[in-house]
Amino acid sequence: MSLNKVLRLTPEPLTPEAFSDFGDVIQVGEQPILINEGTTERHHKLSTVELLGQSDQAIINIFRAQPRSLPMDIKMMERHPLGSQAFLPTSSRPYLVLVCLGEDKPDPYTMRLFLISGREPSLTGVSYKASCWHHPLLALEDVTDFWVVDRAGEGNNLEEYEFDSAWHIQIPELKNYEL
Amino acid sequence: MSLNKVLRLTPEPLTPEAFSDFGDVIQVGEQPILINEGTTERHHKLSTVELLGQSDQAIINIFRAQPRSLPMDIKMMERHPLGSQAFLPTSSRPYLVLVCLGEDKPDPYTMRLFLISGREPSLTGVSYKASCWHHPLLALEDVTDFWVVDRAGEGNNLEEYEFDSAWHIQIPELKNYEL
Repeated sequence: MSLNKVLRLTPEPLTPEAFSDFGDVIQVGEQPILINEGTTERHHKLSTVELLGQSDQAIINIFRAQPRSLPMDIKMMERHPLGSQAFLPTSSRPYLVLVCLGEDKPDPYTMRLFLISGREPSLTGVSYKASCWHHPLLALEDVTDFWVVDRAGEGNNLEEYEFDSAWHIQIPELKNYEL
Repeated sequence: MSLNKVLRLTPEPLTPEAFSDFGDVIQVGEQPILINEGTTERHHKLSTVELLGQSDQAIINIFRAQPRSLPMDIKMMERHPLGSQAFLPTSSRPYLVLVCLGEDKPDPYTMRLFLISGREPSLTGVSYKASCWHHPLLALEDVTDFWVVDRAGEGNNLEEYEFDSAWHIQIPELKNYEL
Protein backbone atom coordinates (compact mmCIF):
# COMPACT_ATOMS: atom_id res chain seq x y z
CA MET A 1 0.00 0.00 0.00
CA SER A 2 1.37 3.43 -0.95
CA LEU A 3 0.77 6.51 1.16
CA ASN A 4 0.26 9.75 -0.71
CA LYS A 5 1.35 12.94 0.95
CA VAL A 6 -1.14 15.72 0.29
CA LEU A 7 -0.38 19.44 0.51
CA ARG A 8 -3.10 21.96 -0.26
CA LEU A 9 -1.58 25.42 -0.53
CA THR A 10 -3.20 28.52 0.95
CA PRO A 11 -2.50 31.85 -0.73
CA GLU A 12 -1.40 34.79 1.37
CA PRO A 13 -0.76 38.48 0.60
CA LEU A 14 2.74 39.35 -0.58
CA THR A 15 4.48 41.53 2.02
CA PRO A 16 8.22 42.26 2.21
CA GLU A 17 8.36 40.59 5.65
CA ALA A 18 6.61 37.40 4.55
CA PHE A 19 8.80 37.20 1.44
CA SER A 20 12.15 38.08 3.03
CA ASP A 21 13.53 34.52 2.97
CA PHE A 22 12.91 34.33 -0.76
CA GLY A 23 13.75 37.74 -2.18
CA ASP A 24 12.38 41.26 -2.63
CA VAL A 25 8.90 42.65 -3.09
CA ILE A 26 9.19 45.51 -5.57
CA GLN A 27 6.55 48.18 -5.13
CA VAL A 28 6.13 51.89 -4.45
CA GLY A 29 7.34 52.82 -0.98
CA GLU A 30 6.73 55.69 1.39
CA GLN A 31 9.97 57.64 1.00
CA PRO A 32 10.55 58.51 -2.63
CA ILE A 33 13.21 60.98 -3.74
CA LEU A 34 11.79 63.85 -5.81
CA ILE A 35 13.67 64.29 -9.09
CA ASN A 36 13.21 66.00 -12.48
CA GLU A 37 12.27 69.35 -10.89
CA GLY A 38 9.69 67.69 -8.70
CA THR A 39 7.78 66.04 -11.54
CA THR A 40 8.93 62.49 -10.74
CA GLU A 41 9.15 60.34 -7.60
CA ARG A 42 12.14 58.00 -7.59
CA HIS A 43 11.50 54.93 -5.41
CA HIS A 44 15.15 54.06 -5.19
CA LYS A 45 16.91 50.69 -5.16
CA LEU A 46 13.89 48.53 -4.39
CA SER A 47 15.98 45.53 -5.43
CA THR A 48 19.56 44.76 -6.43
CA VAL A 49 20.35 42.32 -9.24
CA GLU A 50 22.56 39.46 -7.99
CA LEU A 51 25.29 38.42 -10.42
CA LEU A 52 27.33 35.61 -8.86
CA GLY A 53 29.32 34.28 -11.83
CA GLN A 54 32.42 35.89 -13.25
CA SER A 55 31.82 38.30 -16.14
CA ASP A 56 28.05 38.03 -15.67
CA GLN A 57 25.77 40.67 -17.12
CA ALA A 58 22.33 41.85 -16.02
CA ILE A 59 19.86 41.55 -18.89
CA ILE A 60 16.27 42.59 -19.58
CA ASN A 61 13.82 40.16 -21.17
CA ILE A 62 10.08 39.85 -21.65
CA PHE A 63 8.26 36.69 -20.51
CA ARG A 64 4.82 36.20 -22.04
CA ALA A 65 2.92 33.73 -19.87
CA GLN A 66 -0.18 31.72 -20.72
CA PRO A 67 -2.71 31.74 -17.89
CA ARG A 68 -3.08 28.64 -15.68
CA SER A 69 -6.43 27.28 -14.59
CA LEU A 70 -7.11 26.39 -10.99
CA PRO A 71 -7.14 24.05 -9.20
CA MET A 72 -3.72 22.91 -10.45
CA ASP A 73 -1.17 20.32 -9.38
CA ILE A 74 2.42 21.29 -8.68
CA LYS A 75 4.89 18.83 -10.17
CA MET A 76 8.20 20.65 -10.00
CA MET A 77 10.19 23.64 -8.76
CA GLU A 78 13.24 25.38 -10.20
CA ARG A 79 16.01 27.74 -9.12
CA HIS A 80 18.84 29.84 -10.55
CA PRO A 81 22.05 29.42 -8.56
CA LEU A 82 24.03 32.17 -10.30
CA GLY A 83 21.74 35.16 -10.04
CA SER A 84 18.49 36.75 -8.98
CA GLN A 85 15.48 36.89 -11.27
CA ALA A 86 12.95 39.72 -11.08
CA PHE A 87 9.42 39.66 -12.51
CA LEU A 88 7.92 43.10 -13.13
CA PRO A 89 4.33 42.97 -14.39
CA THR A 90 3.18 45.10 -17.32
CA SER A 91 -0.41 45.26 -16.13
CA SER A 92 -2.58 44.80 -13.06
CA ARG A 93 -3.53 41.23 -13.94
CA PRO A 94 -3.37 38.80 -11.01
CA TYR A 95 -0.61 36.23 -10.62
CA LEU A 96 0.69 33.75 -8.07
CA VAL A 97 4.18 33.35 -6.63
CA LEU A 98 5.05 29.91 -5.23
CA VAL A 99 8.35 29.50 -3.38
CA CYS A 100 9.97 27.23 -0.82
CA LEU A 101 13.21 26.64 1.04
CA GLY A 102 15.58 23.70 0.61
CA GLU A 103 19.33 23.20 0.26
CA ASP A 104 19.77 20.45 -2.32
CA LYS A 105 16.14 20.06 -3.24
CA PRO A 106 12.88 21.91 -2.57
CA ASP A 107 11.33 21.18 0.83
CA PRO A 108 7.55 20.93 0.32
CA TYR A 109 6.88 21.53 4.03
CA THR A 110 8.24 25.10 3.63
CA MET A 111 6.07 26.03 0.63
CA ARG A 112 4.54 29.53 0.58
CA LEU A 113 1.98 30.68 -1.96
CA PHE A 114 1.50 34.43 -2.51
CA LEU A 115 -1.27 36.09 -4.49
CA ILE A 116 -0.72 39.39 -6.27
CA SER A 117 -4.31 40.36 -6.93
CA GLY A 118 -3.55 43.40 -9.07
CA ARG A 119 -5.64 45.44 -6.63
CA GLU A 120 -2.62 46.43 -4.53
CA PRO A 121 -2.06 50.21 -4.29
CA SER A 122 0.68 49.96 -6.92
CA LEU A 123 1.93 47.35 -9.32
CA THR A 124 3.86 44.69 -7.46
CA GLY A 125 6.88 42.79 -8.75
CA VAL A 126 9.11 40.20 -7.11
CA SER A 127 12.77 39.34 -7.31
CA TYR A 128 13.82 35.81 -6.38
CA LYS A 129 17.22 35.63 -4.68
CA ALA A 130 19.82 33.41 -6.29
CA SER A 131 19.04 29.76 -5.40
CA CYS A 132 15.47 30.50 -4.24
CA TRP A 133 13.27 27.56 -5.24
CA HIS A 134 10.26 28.86 -7.18
CA HIS A 135 7.60 27.61 -9.52
CA PRO A 136 7.57 28.91 -13.10
CA LEU A 137 5.23 31.84 -13.83
CA LEU A 138 1.65 31.45 -12.67
CA ALA A 139 -0.42 34.00 -14.59
CA LEU A 140 -4.11 33.62 -13.87
CA GLU A 141 -6.53 35.65 -15.89
CA ASP A 142 -5.16 36.07 -19.36
CA VAL A 143 -1.90 36.05 -21.31
CA THR A 144 0.35 38.25 -19.15
CA ASP A 145 3.66 39.89 -20.03
CA PHE A 146 6.38 40.51 -17.46
CA TRP A 147 9.61 42.46 -17.79
CA VAL A 148 12.20 40.04 -16.44
CA VAL A 149 15.60 41.16 -15.13
CA ASP A 150 18.08 38.31 -14.67
CA ARG A 151 21.62 37.35 -15.60
CA ALA A 152 23.47 36.11 -18.64
CA GLY A 153 26.88 34.47 -18.47
CA GLU A 154 28.72 31.19 -18.47
CA GLY A 155 27.76 28.15 -16.41
CA ASN A 156 24.50 26.35 -15.65
CA ASN A 157 22.01 28.72 -14.07
CA LEU A 158 18.95 26.43 -14.11
CA GLU A 159 18.20 23.60 -11.69
CA GLU A 160 14.88 21.83 -11.93
CA TYR A 161 13.46 19.36 -9.44
CA GLU A 162 10.51 17.03 -10.10
CA PHE A 163 8.56 15.87 -7.09
CA ASP A 164 8.20 12.23 -6.27
CA SER A 165 4.78 11.12 -7.50
CA ALA A 166 3.88 10.23 -3.91
CA TRP A 167 3.53 13.98 -3.34
CA HIS A 168 0.26 15.64 -4.24
CA ILE A 169 0.66 19.43 -4.02
CA GLN A 170 -2.32 21.46 -5.12
CA ILE A 171 -3.22 25.11 -5.61
CA PRO A 172 -6.96 25.32 -4.88
CA GLU A 173 -9.46 27.32 -6.86
CA LEU A 174 -9.50 31.02 -5.92
CA LYS A 175 -12.69 33.03 -5.86
CA ASN A 176 -12.18 36.12 -8.04
CA TYR A 177 -8.48 35.92 -7.15
CA GLU A 178 -9.24 37.24 -3.70
CA LEU A 179 -7.78 36.05 -0.42
CA MET B 1 19.59 92.60 -31.51
CA SER B 2 19.52 88.97 -30.31
CA LEU B 3 18.68 86.14 -32.66
CA ASN B 4 16.66 83.29 -31.19
CA LYS B 5 17.22 79.83 -32.59
CA VAL B 6 13.94 77.92 -32.87
CA LEU B 7 13.58 74.14 -33.05
CA ARG B 8 10.16 72.60 -33.26
CA LEU B 9 10.42 68.85 -32.70
CA THR B 10 8.49 66.30 -34.75
CA PRO B 11 7.62 62.99 -33.10
CA GLU B 12 8.41 59.75 -34.89
CA PRO B 13 7.66 56.09 -34.14
CA LEU B 14 10.20 54.30 -31.97
CA THR B 15 11.95 51.58 -33.99
CA PRO B 16 15.17 49.76 -33.04
CA GLU B 17 16.87 51.16 -36.17
CA ALA B 18 15.87 54.77 -35.52
CA PHE B 19 16.94 54.45 -31.87
CA SER B 20 20.20 52.55 -32.38
CA ASP B 21 22.48 55.55 -31.73
CA PHE B 22 20.81 56.10 -28.38
CA GLY B 23 20.13 52.65 -26.92
CA ASP B 24 17.71 49.72 -27.09
CA VAL B 25 14.00 49.45 -27.82
CA ILE B 26 12.66 46.75 -25.50
CA GLN B 27 9.62 44.96 -26.87
CA VAL B 28 8.35 41.51 -27.82
CA GLY B 29 10.27 40.10 -30.80
CA GLU B 30 9.60 37.43 -33.37
CA GLN B 31 11.84 34.66 -32.09
CA PRO B 32 10.97 33.81 -28.51
CA ILE B 33 12.30 30.72 -26.75
CA LEU B 34 9.53 28.50 -25.37
CA ILE B 35 10.07 27.67 -21.69
CA ASN B 36 8.09 26.36 -18.72
CA GLU B 37 6.74 23.35 -20.66
CA GLY B 38 5.59 25.58 -23.47
CA THR B 39 3.47 27.87 -21.28
CA THR B 40 5.81 30.87 -21.52
CA GLU B 41 7.61 32.72 -24.31
CA ARG B 42 11.00 34.08 -23.28
CA HIS B 43 12.01 37.07 -25.39
CA HIS B 44 15.64 36.82 -24.42
CA LYS B 45 18.22 39.51 -23.73
CA LEU B 46 16.37 42.44 -25.29
CA SER B 47 18.83 44.73 -23.53
CA THR B 48 21.98 44.45 -21.41
CA VAL B 49 22.53 46.69 -18.39
CA GLU B 50 25.76 48.71 -18.75
CA LEU B 51 27.76 49.02 -15.53
CA LEU B 52 30.92 51.02 -16.25
CA GLY B 53 32.20 51.85 -12.76
CA GLN B 54 34.08 49.47 -10.50
CA SER B 55 31.91 47.48 -8.07
CA ASP B 56 28.73 48.82 -9.68
CA GLN B 57 25.44 47.04 -9.14
CA ALA B 58 22.34 46.88 -11.32
CA ILE B 59 19.30 48.04 -9.35
CA ILE B 60 15.54 48.14 -9.86
CA ASN B 61 13.53 51.26 -8.99
CA ILE B 62 10.10 52.67 -9.69
CA PHE B 63 9.74 56.16 -11.19
CA ARG B 64 6.30 57.74 -10.78
CA ALA B 65 5.99 60.55 -13.33
CA GLN B 66 3.53 63.43 -13.39
CA PRO B 67 2.11 64.02 -16.87
CA ARG B 68 3.38 66.97 -18.92
CA SER B 69 1.11 69.18 -20.94
CA LEU B 70 1.89 70.06 -24.52
CA PRO B 71 3.09 72.20 -26.13
CA MET B 72 6.14 72.35 -23.84
CA ASP B 73 9.53 74.02 -23.94
CA ILE B 74 12.70 72.00 -23.54
CA LYS B 75 15.19 73.70 -21.23
CA MET B 76 17.71 70.97 -20.43
CA MET B 77 19.01 67.48 -21.13
CA GLU B 78 20.80 65.00 -18.89
CA ARG B 79 22.94 61.87 -19.15
CA HIS B 80 24.43 59.11 -17.02
CA PRO B 81 28.08 58.45 -17.89
CA LEU B 82 28.52 55.33 -15.75
CA GLY B 83 25.65 53.14 -16.86
CA SER B 84 22.58 52.53 -18.95
CA GLN B 85 19.09 53.41 -17.72
CA ALA B 86 16.04 51.44 -18.83
CA PHE B 87 12.42 52.61 -18.56
CA LEU B 88 9.86 49.81 -18.61
CA PRO B 89 6.25 51.05 -18.53
CA THR B 90 3.68 49.48 -16.20
CA SER B 91 0.77 50.34 -18.47
CA SER B 92 -0.09 51.26 -22.02
CA ARG B 93 -0.19 55.00 -21.32
CA PRO B 94 1.58 57.13 -23.93
CA TYR B 95 4.96 58.75 -23.32
CA LEU B 96 7.65 60.59 -25.22
CA VAL B 97 11.38 59.89 -25.50
CA LEU B 98 13.61 62.84 -26.37
CA VAL B 99 17.29 62.17 -27.08
CA CYS B 100 20.22 63.74 -28.89
CA LEU B 101 23.91 63.27 -29.63
CA GLY B 102 26.79 65.39 -28.35
CA GLU B 103 30.20 64.77 -26.83
CA ASP B 104 30.61 67.40 -24.09
CA LYS B 105 27.13 68.86 -24.34
CA PRO B 106 23.87 68.03 -26.09
CA ASP B 107 23.76 69.02 -29.76
CA PRO B 108 20.25 70.41 -30.44
CA TYR B 109 20.63 69.84 -34.17
CA THR B 110 20.67 66.06 -33.57
CA MET B 111 17.50 65.95 -31.44
CA ARG B 112 15.07 63.08 -32.04
CA LEU B 113 11.63 62.86 -30.47
CA PHE B 114 9.92 59.45 -30.28
CA LEU B 115 6.32 58.77 -29.35
CA ILE B 116 5.28 55.55 -27.64
CA SER B 117 1.55 55.71 -28.18
CA GLY B 118 0.66 52.69 -26.06
CA ARG B 119 -1.07 51.24 -29.11
CA GLU B 120 2.02 49.31 -30.21
CA PRO B 121 1.48 45.52 -30.44
CA SER B 122 3.24 45.08 -27.09
CA LEU B 123 4.39 47.32 -24.29
CA THR B 124 7.50 49.22 -25.33
CA GLY B 125 10.38 50.20 -23.07
CA VAL B 126 13.67 51.92 -23.81
CA SER B 127 17.17 51.67 -22.45
CA TYR B 128 19.44 54.69 -22.83
CA LYS B 129 23.09 53.77 -23.38
CA ALA B 130 25.60 55.19 -20.92
CA SER B 131 26.24 58.86 -21.85
CA CYS B 132 23.15 59.16 -24.08
CA TRP B 133 21.72 62.66 -23.68
CA HIS B 134 18.02 62.40 -22.86
CA HIS B 135 15.26 64.49 -21.41
CA PRO B 136 13.72 63.44 -18.07
CA LEU B 137 10.52 61.37 -18.25
CA LEU B 138 7.77 62.75 -20.45
CA ALA B 139 4.54 61.02 -19.40
CA LEU B 140 1.54 62.43 -21.21
CA GLU B 141 -1.87 61.31 -20.15
CA ASP B 142 -1.83 60.67 -16.44
CA VAL B 143 0.50 59.82 -13.58
CA THR B 144 2.57 56.96 -15.03
CA ASP B 145 4.79 54.45 -13.25
CA PHE B 146 7.88 52.94 -14.85
CA TRP B 147 10.12 50.15 -13.63
CA VAL B 148 13.60 51.63 -13.98
CA VAL B 149 16.73 49.49 -14.23
CA ASP B 150 19.96 51.44 -13.76
CA ARG B 151 23.16 51.36 -11.72
CA ALA B 152 24.25 52.14 -8.20
CA GLY B 153 27.87 52.69 -7.23
CA GLU B 154 30.49 55.28 -6.51
CA GLY B 155 31.18 58.37 -8.61
CA ASN B 156 29.00 61.01 -10.24
CA ASN B 157 26.52 59.40 -12.65
CA LEU B 158 24.44 62.49 -13.45
CA GLU B 159 25.35 65.30 -15.84
CA GLU B 160 22.77 67.99 -16.55
CA TYR B 161 23.01 70.64 -19.25
CA GLU B 162 20.84 73.77 -19.44
CA PHE B 163 20.36 75.29 -22.85
CA ASP B 164 21.36 78.84 -23.54
CA SER B 165 18.22 80.97 -23.38
CA ALA B 166 18.77 81.89 -27.03
CA TRP B 167 17.52 78.42 -27.88
CA HIS B 168 13.80 77.81 -28.13
CA ILE B 169 13.11 74.07 -28.41
CA GLN B 170 9.49 73.06 -28.39
CA ILE B 171 7.43 69.88 -28.39
CA PRO B 172 4.23 70.75 -30.25
CA GLU B 173 0.75 69.68 -29.23
CA LEU B 174 -0.08 66.10 -30.32
CA LYS B 175 -3.55 65.12 -31.46
CA ASN B 176 -4.67 62.12 -29.38
CA TYR B 177 -0.99 61.19 -29.08
CA GLU B 178 -1.00 59.99 -32.68
CA LEU B 179 1.69 60.52 -35.28
